Amino acid sequence: MICKSLIPPAGRRYAVEGKHGIGGGWGESMVSQFEVRIVWGDCDEQGIVFYPTFFYWMDSAFQALLRDGGYSVRSMREKYGIIGIPIVEANARFLSSVTYEEILRVEAEIRHWGKTSLRVEYKGFCGDRPIFEGFEARVWLARANNGQPAADAIPQAFKNAFAAAGAQD
Amino acid sequence: MICKSLIPPAGRRYAVEGKHGIGGGWGESMVSQFEVRIVWGDCDEQGIVFYPTFFYWMDSAFQALLRDGGYSVRSMREKYGIIGIPIVEANARFLSSVTYEEILRVEAEIRHWGKTSLRVEYKGFCGDRPIFEGFEARVWLARANNGQPAADAIPQAFKNAFAAAGAQD
Amino acid sequence: MICKSLIPPAGRRYAVEGKHGIGGGWGESMVSQFEVRIVWGDCDEQGIVFYPTFFYWMDSAFQALLRDGGYSVRSMREKYGIIGIPIVEANARFLSSVTYEEILRVEAEIRHWGKTSLRVEYKGFCGDRPIFEGFEARVWLARANNGQPAADAIPQAFKNAFAAAGAQD
Amino acid sequence: MICKSLIPPAGRRYAVEGKHGIGGGWGESMVSQFEVRIVWGDCDEQGIVFYPTFFYWMDSAFQALLRDGGYSVRSMREKYGIIGIPIVEANARFLSSVTYEEILRVEAEIRHWGKTSLRVEYKGFCGDRPIFEGFEARVWLARANNGQPAADAIPQAFKNAFAAAGAQD
Repeated sequence: MICKSLIPPAGRRYAVEGKHGIGGGWGESMVSQFEVRIVWGDCDEQGIVFYPTFFYWMDSAFQALLRDGGYSVRSMREKYGIIGIPIVEANARFLSSVTYEEILRVEAEIRHWGKTSLRVEYKGFCGDRPIFEGFEARVWLARANNGQPAADAIPQAFKNAFAAAGAQD
Repeated sequence: MICKSLIPPAGRRYAVEGKHGIGGGWGESMVSQFEVRIVWGDCDEQGIVFYPTFFYWMDSAFQALLRDGGYSVRSMREKYGIIGIPIVEANARFLSSVTYEEILRVEAEIRHWGKTSLRVEYKGFCGDRPIFEGFEARVWLARANNGQPAADAIPQAFKNAFAAAGAQD
Repeated sequence: MICKSLIPPAGRRYAVEGKHGIGGGWGESMVSQFEVRIVWGDCDEQGIVFYPTFFYWMDSAFQALLRDGGYSVRSMREKYGIIGIPIVEANARFLSSVTYEEILRVEAEIRHWGKTSLRVEYKGFCGDRPIFEGFEARVWLARANNGQPAADAIPQAFKNAFAAAGAQD
Repeated sequence: MICKSLIPPAGRRYAVEGKHGIGGGWGESMVSQFEVRIVWGDCDEQGIVFYPTFFYWMDSAFQALLRDGGYSVRSMREKYGIIGIPIVEANARFLSSVTYEEILRVEAEIRHWGKTSLRVEYKGFCGDRPIFEGFEARVWLARANNGQPAADAIPQAFKNAFAAAGAQD
């Protein structure tokens, strides 16, 4: 089994056929991939991945998406002065178990933009076998005038960076 | 800050006032507690807990609940011949961040029994501060006559072990 | 099996009989304890703890030792202006395997002070059964005049805080 | 920065110039590579990798080495009837810190064969920058006639599979 590069080329955009269940229209905006080979240490006594690790890979796929959009948490802090982009909700449905030596591919796409929040959706596969579907709700966390953390409006330039047509600022 | 024992006494049952948001009636059946002191290695660059770790603690609280009911995954395999009780869905909403040196208390209760599945709900606190609320949907996984993994009916004795009144088999 | 409090009282100091292998004289200075119940998610396919996790617990026991001496990494940064106290070497020898539901007790003691470094030694037990022995070499990392990270002399007051007789600054 | 494939071709063998410090003669037998991009969740409050994770990657590099030799822990159990090949000692010296978005390359080589044990050595790099050096001592764990776990002689065919010239059984 030959695995694609660990690191997809920056700004990867492609249309996906929307067959994978999370709503329709998957691939309407930028989709990034994160691939990982499952290792011994990821698995529990039943020899399958211990489920919290899937959230670690969802977060990793989000970082890959940021990278493809030209960002990282660090650069976002510097450019926009925010504290970060923390999670307020996370969810995953597990469709099939995975064991070590398998290659897990996680696709990530920002599927909803709110004023101060966003929703990232994920699909995990081993080859064509669906493994999980999940989402994260994240908030754009800045500091209010009193210095306290507070949600703030997401800059349009940031949103644009993840559009399928890809007008990056 | 004085922390209670790491290990709650077996079969702990108590009524909780149901103020914590996940439906009403929290504490109608057995509620178990899992406590952990957050350590340096649990936190990310922002100095707060990296969110997948909360799912690890939810799973840990589930094991505590099993223990309070007189079970472990290992004993369930031996007694009932099942493969396990894997996750089919997991969810958490994060209400407040946590940093190292804080004591996190996770309460777990089985809030719904299906024929072959169950729903465990979780609430996390530091002192009185709500930290997160979550749930896991788990399935009673046995083997069908053809040897393949298949959901099976949960034995009544198992369900009874987690009732508030606590008629254990 | 009854476990002691998760959190030993601050400034705990006691003499240990030196029987546990790492040199003699264990307990000549402050010894701290960290206890944890092994959970399902800590174990691999063989049903025993996946070994890197022992280093996580060694680090956790070091944080407990700092706490007992009146410190945390955060307070050390504030008080002494250091970057941190990172690891330059870590080692463990594994004497017996451990599985979930067991209580692991890790004892930590600073056994050697250099000018800019220290050596913390660890012993892990389940009850009386020795599980592992390990050490960490750590360095007192500050910033040189040119702003670059550089090892610096450890303040005497810090060293004193971990003496068995316990003259804290 | 372009990263090589996540998965080196099976049976990869190459001579390395032995400049990297762990004894001389690095590359006298098979050397495998494991590459990983550091992610946000691998880093602590200082923004650098939390050190126990390096041991997880050492273990991952060992699995890659097994794979290149035509084995996995699972196949070794089936073929040789062993329990596993657990760690009895692990060590790492940390030479430079690493942060997220960097690509870590871990090379692994079995550098010593005992009758019932082996020593795997590791070198970690980001590009040309040395990050860590480490080793694991592992034992060939079978069952004695009384059913108890006991170290046993490593089959010559297994040893041969990791020779540079590569006579695989």
